[in-house]
Amino acid sequence: MTAPLHEAHPSSPGRRLPDTQQGMRRRNLARVMHTVSAEGPLSRAAVASRIGLTRAAVSTLVDELIRSGLLEELGPERPGRVGRPGSALAVSGRGPAGIGAEIGVDHLAVSAVDLRGGVRARAVRHGTNRGRAPGPVLTELTALVERVVAEAEREGLWPAGLAVAVPGLVARDARTVVRAPNLDWHHVDLGTLLPAGLPLTVDNEANFGSLAELWLGDSTPRDFLHVSAEIGIGGAVVVDGRLLRGTHGFAGELGHVPVRPEGPECACGGRGCLEQYAGEEAVLRAAGLTPGEDRVDMLAERAAQGDKDVCRALHDAGTALGVALTGAVNLLDPEAVVLGGALAALAPWLLPSLERELARRTAGPPCAVTVSRLGSEGPLLGAAHSVVRAVLDDPAAIAERG
Amino acid sequence: MTAPLHEAHPSSPGRRLPDTQQGMRRRNLARVMHTVSAEGPLSRAAVASRIGLTRAAVSTLVDELIRSGLLEELGPERPGRVGRPGSALAVSGRGPAGIGAEIGVDHLAVSAVDLRGGVRARAVRHGTNRGRAPGPVLTELTALVERVVAEAEREGLWPAGLAVAVPGLVARDARTVVRAPNLDWHHVDLGTLLPAGLPLTVDNEANFGSLAELWLGDSTPRDFLHVSAEIGIGGAVVVDGRLLRGTHGFAGELGHVPVRPEGPECACGGRGCLEQYAGEEAVLRAAGLTPGEDRVDMLAERAAQGDKDVCRALHDAGTALGVALTGAVNLLDPEAVVLGGALAALAPWLLPSLERELARRTAGPPCAVTVSRLGSEGPLLGAAHSVVRAVLDDPAAIAERG
Repeated sequence: MTAPLHEAHPSSPGRRLPDTQQGMRRRNLARVMHTVSAEGPLSRAAVASRIGLTRAAVSTLVDELIRSGLLEELGPERPGRVGRPGSALAVSGRGPAGIGAEIGVDHLAVSAVDLRGGVRARAVRHGTNRGRAPGPVLTELTALVERVVAEAEREGLWPAGLAVAVPGLVARDARTVVRAPNLDWHHVDLGTLLPAGLPLTVDNEANFGSLAELWLGDSTPRDFLHVSAEIGIGGAVVVDGRLLRGTHGFAGELGHVPVRPEGPECACGGRGCLEQYAGEEAVLRAAGLTPGEDRVDMLAERAAQGDKDVCRALHDAGTALGVALTGAVNLLDPEAVVLGGALAALAPWLLPSLERELARRTAGPPCAVTVSRLGSEGPLLGAAHSVVRAVLDDPAAIAERG
Repeated sequence: MTAPLHEAHPSSPGRRLPDTQQGMRRRNLARVMHTVSAEGPLSRAAVASRIGLTRAAVSTLVDELIRSGLLEELGPERPGRVGRPGSALAVSGRGPAGIGAEIGVDHLAVSAVDLRGGVRARAVRHGTNRGRAPGPVLTELTALVERVVAEAEREGLWPAGLAVAVPGLVARDARTVVRAPNLDWHHVDLGTLLPAGLPLTVDNEANFGSLAELWLGDSTPRDFLHVSAEIGIGGAVVVDGRLLRGTHGFAGELGHVPVRPEGPECACGGRGCLEQYAGEEAVLRAAGLTPGEDRVDMLAERAAQGDKDVCRALHDAGTALGVALTGAVNLLDPEAVVLGGALAALAPWLLPSLERELARRTAGPPCAVTVSRLGSEGPLLGAAHSVVRAVLDDPAAIAERG
């Protein structure tokens, strides 16, 4: 079993390299990259003081990173500072880029993100994928990937890897979609159906959404529970800055937590699962509406107009979320619950009942519930950034590939 | 926030020491200790080959550990082996010992465990602590600790630390009992009430029980959910060989997961919590029995005799456990659920309904449910061993103290 992503925070390396001089060098290269990435532009002296190595040691590491095209020198720092002016270092805006892709129930999307976190190319195709065979969908996705890669290459970037977000459970091989009920895909190995030559990572959309929140969110804590919804309800657990994956890679399945043990039957085989009360289709049904495209926009619009049925349906969904989250909060004691994906857009109408339920059921200090700023952009951003983070986490690997 | 325990598996250091030569030396001392502890007696050459260092490097580390009294040489190995006979190394049976203590609702217990894991002294006092003030209880516990320490000292051991298991929530300072409802203790700082001079760690009994399971259980996986019951229901989550603590140190609270959202009111402020269906008192009530001492033995005895009311009450408790565990298994995707504490003794009558509920509600591969061999001994063993593990995890700290 391998951890497919380098999801660790800089201060807690996710993958332990061996305790040798060589391992130490690799880890120190990563510390330089993360420091410049988080705080740059910085002089060599500033990097040295921040990571607690000598200036000479840092210079050797920096030279190696410049040779690999991962760092660049911006030229002498402005005069007026104390001491001899050093050349400021910045993460390269050329060189490796992360290619993120998303297979949604209603769309496909691809984007290229450079090492500085800038989105440099993007392509989207709307249209339902529900019930379509994997082959044609992945052929379309491949075309979008090729278009985005070509655009990125014109800007001096090269793709360091491809990460694909899917609305389903992914095996720990980080390639195989075990079950994506809303696509009706079962045991599909994406590795054989996507462009060869690019290192590939496939993961659940909720996992990528939570990583985006961790990396890009506004003061996201290092221990949180991420809850999102598209058609289904997704969850992801981040502990000490790392995504909890579980034995089979299935951790975070919040949608099938029993809310009412004798409630309506669920496609999963259980009864009264959260998805039966707070999934998009359940909410639409409860509001007397017909599922279609742009469901979330429609719900948010009607709720904003004060549509009683929609508001009541969202209130009840919030209550169900509160019951399911009580169990999760009791079990994990996270610093916050973050509502992402479609739940972010619907938060104004979900939060009151959700928070009330959570507060009255948890004896301990109340757990903060916050709303993601990234919303439904989270999974695609998380996918592209996961490739970028892998480069920052082990820059030596790029040098070896180059 | 500090992690009060060195709960890590040898291969994944829980506390990251800095990436310096000095940090590397400390980690390598720990690797030698863990290797000899797990596989000894071993020659220096065997240790070197197992941890991938040169024989000279290992000899330096071993000499330091012998000087600190943590390793001992057993004399030349038996002839008949290939090569020049080396002296076999073993973990010392003298030197530091872990002192574990347990504050139960109905008893106090203390034991001393040497670095080899042998229980070398033990003292127990029966009698209820429910509703007693912390002062007198801790005075009695101190007397037991002193008796056990004196006995250990007569055998050439010295106490490296004291770890106390309590039936309640403990703050992340690893000293303060925030809430122990079945003792009726609130915000009690045990640090001021226990013998000074001994490094102290206080933790929830379910946490220590799960660590005992991890360290001493029969092929316990590295990802599991531990569920135990005394008066309340305790839970603990172990991920990748490490105990998940949560933001406030309260993770693992399975007893207040809502099983039936509109069920009976619970002391926690919620409704229909698991404890209302599967806690010892709930089971006794459902079986028409009066709570008293030796409740678990009585339940097990009557169930074994085929008492219909008791069997039905345990069957229903198993169902409630199955519902609550479905949510937890969906969220964490553990390799196994381990029933510990009193649940181990009652497992034959809980398991059928528990497993049925779990199987019908979880869509993924069924999660194994196993029964702890340690049963209600778990928390005390886990406490004493946590001190021993801290010595193995950072033997240099002992040398510095000595």
